[in-house]
Amino acid sequence: MTARRNSRVVLTREIEGAPSAEDFRVVDAPMPQPADGELLIRHIYLSLDPYQRGAIAGRHGPGAPLGEGDMPPGETVGQIVASQHPDFAPGDYVRSFGGWQEYSTAAGDTVFPVDGNRAPISTYLGALGMPGLTAYASIIELASAQQGQTVLVSAASGPVGTTLGQIAINRGASVIGIAGSAEKCSYVIDELGFSDCIDYKRDDYHERLQAAAGEGFDIYHDNVGGQMLADAIMVMRPYGTVVLCGLMSQYNDPALAKDLYIGLPIMKRLTMKGLVVYDFEDRRAALVDLVAPWIAAGSFRINEDRVNGIEYAGAHFARLMAGQNFGKALVVIGAE
Amino acid sequence: MTARRNSRVVLTREIEGAPSAEDFRVVDAPMPQPADGELLIRHIYLSLDPYQRGAIAGRHGPGAPLGEGDMPPGETVGQIVASQHPDFAPGDYVRSFGGWQEYSTAAGDTVFPVDGNRAPISTYLGALGMPGLTAYASIIELASAQQGQTVLVSAASGPVGTTLGQIAINRGASVIGIAGSAEKCSYVIDELGFSDCIDYKRDDYHERLQAAAGEGFDIYHDNVGGQMLADAIMVMRPYGTVVLCGLMSQYNDPALAKDLYIGLPIMKRLTMKGLVVYDFEDRRAALVDLVAPWIAAGSFRINEDRVNGIEYAGAHFARLMAGQNFGKALVVIGAE
Repeated sequence: MTARRNSRVVLTREIEGAPSAEDFRVVDAPMPQPADGELLIRHIYLSLDPYQRGAIAGRHGPGAPLGEGDMPPGETVGQIVASQHPDFAPGDYVRSFGGWQEYSTAAGDTVFPVDGNRAPISTYLGALGMPGLTAYASIIELASAQQGQTVLVSAASGPVGTTLGQIAINRGASVIGIAGSAEKCSYVIDELGFSDCIDYKRDDYHERLQAAAGEGFDIYHDNVGGQMLADAIMVMRPYGTVVLCGLMSQYNDPALAKDLYIGLPIMKRLTMKGLVVYDFEDRRAALVDLVAPWIAAGSFRINEDRVNGIEYAGAHFARLMAGQNFGKALVVIGAE
Repeated sequence: MTARRNSRVVLTREIEGAPSAEDFRVVDAPMPQPADGELLIRHIYLSLDPYQRGAIAGRHGPGAPLGEGDMPPGETVGQIVASQHPDFAPGDYVRSFGGWQEYSTAAGDTVFPVDGNRAPISTYLGALGMPGLTAYASIIELASAQQGQTVLVSAASGPVGTTLGQIAINRGASVIGIAGSAEKCSYVIDELGFSDCIDYKRDDYHERLQAAAGEGFDIYHDNVGGQMLADAIMVMRPYGTVVLCGLMSQYNDPALAKDLYIGLPIMKRLTMKGLVVYDFEDRRAALVDLVAPWIAAGSFRINEDRVNGIEYAGAHFARLMAGQNFGKALVVIGAE
């Protein structure tokens, strides 16, 4: 086992602005050894998520910015190779924060079992993972979508948007998406049952948003911040709920923070709630119990944007941060 | 009665930016006559409030900007001179939107009885009026202040701030104010029982706000918007509540709307709620039942900033909009 190498992706430099493939390279790292209570995990899937841009910049938590030679953090689904923990055996699948590498060790108490019999193991990074939990917390816990309400969601074709939309539709709400291409819009309408989807890159975006709003939206889930949030507030119904959950527009450059003119939230008596998914760990089981049966039954659609090979992680992340991905961004690191 | 004149304050021009005394003048207007179902009311007190700046500019409701010769709107407490409505008799006191003039007529169904036996009639424009109802709706209905919580309120020495603070203290919360002079700060601490008050015009404002915040505020009532709102969000406790209720910083110039960087409201899981006092008309009786006994008992302090004579209304309003008033701004138009 110690003869194997552990390929790892690290930064070639501190990243300014939007990341590019050249900001990352693959290095050989030592093969980690599990200590008492730990597991050695072979990674199969690495999740790429927008929050990682903030983590690289030192804005996501207490850390400093990452520099040359540092590995970005990332959630992984993998298989246990060796176990020094009584609850896990070689062959078990687990989710953990393994990072951008082929192998990691983790304390058995810090990883989550992944049950491939309930749903494909990759979905534990998407609809059944952090994006799904974000969607669940927003639409069920904070906004409490009801039958007959109208829901607007930005980044509609991404893992949060698609999960949130499908849960809301299941609860009897009608869902309108905002996305960045005709393909993404067609997908959420034709495949997921969204009532409408508006391409924010088209010139008629504001007119179409206004028209789709009708009397106004009851709920808006914001992944983006900036001008898109301001636009959505314009078309909210009085007493509506806005869940503030992301700053996609500003992860690359916080200086892009735009005016939020609070006159409108006042006039509309909006409730705006900040959401951090880590608060909702105790809802993970409820999420899986809700969505996994839909996945197994084929009534819940999964859209993954995969690349094969850890050497493509950097380029795939750059596409994600440029809004060029379509579906949950995953890097396939090893065979299932 | 028809021989009497009705003095009225009108604009001398459309107002740009901060108002000044020269923007207003007194004219003789016709003495109004009550039609069937109406009352003729002699005004005693005229309430001056920041929302009137927006009304003059046509931003408070559907109207157009007011121009030369137009009378600003305003709430009044007055005495009935003649009644064509069965529920009211001459001598009764009422509150209505009488405007900046000595007399008005109003349908009996649109005015509110004022009971001078419960509290001084002027307080029905302050602690028992719209500012008081705003405070009540914010601290009881939207933010639900609890024993042991800490509350921050801007414009602390104004009618909303003083009422809100005294209600919150009565509920067992500790209250910290933000105000614009040492005199205002001393007043809310020494007379009203605020725990602290921070003068935002001092150089050490940010340091003192940070120090007063301790672990952070549970509730912030914002009358101001702009930079003061952003500063307050910095010192909120996670899961705190921000009530958005005013744009004092922007009434004179909406272009002054400042950045609200929503990263912080997310990270702190804040709930921000827009408040419009008109939604809470059905709580008026509850407000009076709560606060009037305190006023009668002398345990609730009233601070009024009066001028005598309708001819000073414009100058008094200009001082209010420049933050130079201290207490509920009233114009004494006639004898009680």
